Amino acid sequence: MLANIRIVLVRPRGSGNIGSIARAMKNMGQTDLALVGKARTRSFWARAMAVHGRDILANAQRYETLREAVADCVLVVGTTCRSGLYRKHSQSPEALAGEILTAAKNGKVALVFGPEDHGLSNRDIEPCQLLMTIPTNPEYPSLNVAQAVVICLYELYVATFDAVQNRGIERAPAEDVERLFDRMRTVLLKIGFLDSENPEHMLLAFRRILGRAGLEEKDVRIFTGMFRQIEWYIDQGWKVVEEKEKRGIKIH
Amino acid sequence: MLANIRIVLVRPRGSGNIGSIARAMKNMGQTDLALVGKARTRSFWARAMAVHGRDILANAQRYETLREAVADCVLVVGTTCRSGLYRKHSQSPEALAGEILTAAKNGKVALVFGPEDHGLSNRDIEPCQLLMTIPTNPEYPSLNVAQAVVICLYELYVATFDAVQNRGIERAPAEDVERLFDRMRTVLLKIGFLDSENPEHMLLAFRRILGRAGLEEKDVRIFTGMFRQIEWYIDQGWKVVEEKEKRGIKIH
Repeated sequence: MLANIRIVLVRPRGSGNIGSIARAMKNMGQTDLALVGKARTRSFWARAMAVHGRDILANAQRYETLREAVADCVLVVGTTCRSGLYRKHSQSPEALAGEILTAAKNGKVALVFGPEDHGLSNRDIEPCQLLMTIPTNPEYPSLNVAQAVVICLYELYVATFDAVQNRGIERAPAEDVERLFDRMRTVLLKIGFLDSENPEHMLLAFRRILGRAGLEEKDVRIFTGMFRQIEWYIDQGWKVVEEKEKRGIKIH
Repeated sequence: MLANIRIVLVRPRGSGNIGSIARAMKNMGQTDLALVGKARTRSFWARAMAVHGRDILANAQRYETLREAVADCVLVVGTTCRSGLYRKHSQSPEALAGEILTAAKNGKVALVFGPEDHGLSNRDIEPCQLLMTIPTNPEYPSLNVAQAVVICLYELYVATFDAVQNRGIERAPAEDVERLFDRMRTVLLKIGFLDSENPEHMLLAFRRILGRAGLEEKDVRIFTGMFRQIEWYIDQGWKVVEEKEKRGIKIH
């Protein structure tokens, strides 16, 4: 299960932190490191901090976007130390460990960590089905990113010894879920339910709700089918209207 | 209780590590740092890594020997990643958290961490009443000392919450949810997505998914709003079509 955990670092700035994370991954029996954007893995500090985790640095996969980095994942978990409108229902590593390990039986699970200065942006958390927050002192909640990673990996490592609590959900690949949201966006923009200036705002509410549920492949098919049918039905009606208009029939 | 935890670093070598530990202590609500032997707390790296934990660095107490550093403690816990004759009965942070917090009600508890290269010596562990080992990959058990500290502090921090893990979802009243499904049924029958012979069959799939998610009142409003908008938009198009039909215009 641990082999299916992917650590995704979004625009990491400190190369020493990347090295520390590679070491922590090795300590906790993990190997799959993904880097989004520029990341200096060959610097002195990256290599010095990695110690025996240098092979993980060398084998890290690089991606232009977060979406690409998690495309083959069945579960995407974003980490945040901030609260706010888009960050409700964030859970502790302990609370999520069982669900993460269960999902990791069926496919890759991404744990996504943001840049050192501001963490994951609202844009970054869009593809995240679940959010995780490490309990900290409210007066200074911002952990160093390598510290945050090791705590999460530690919780997963020790949870492999526990009887895994299993909801039995086999999550669909993230790319399939993203295609569902692409379709929702199209349909809901067309009917004016989403604000065309900021469609992602309302869409994020659906992402949170469906992320909590955990969508299996058949669930994705059901929702996709519903939106396809809505779109088809709408188009039938309005096509006829448009045709009449073209022929000069006034629509009230 | 957390105020009574003392982090004791024995002969720490990397000043960046000392800074990282000061930050981690601040993150986890702790302040009492003790340094045994020489330790560079005013270096660039110590201060850079400490970020908002610089006051902890500045207030760190210095001691010549470990014995002095733990003299006023009611419990002394040594950390080790090695096993061996003197290191039997070492327990995980999770297993020891309860005992440590209980002791911290009555007085100071020292968590003792050794130098980066070899950890605590046999001599160092003499004053330790309990030993703690963080579970790691046996192939590479040696954690960075700042990583080890943050894991221990995290375990203690979360152990202070006895409350049951709570997803924090406040489910909407069942009646509100039923009204949402009533609206879904109406709309989805209208567009032909539900089988008119057995609409509940497909609706049950949505009930399962949204039931797993747990719908709060605002979630119900969002979904209800979406279906209301779909219905309104559809009706606009088809009303026009119907009107034309009534007036005898053939719809292909």
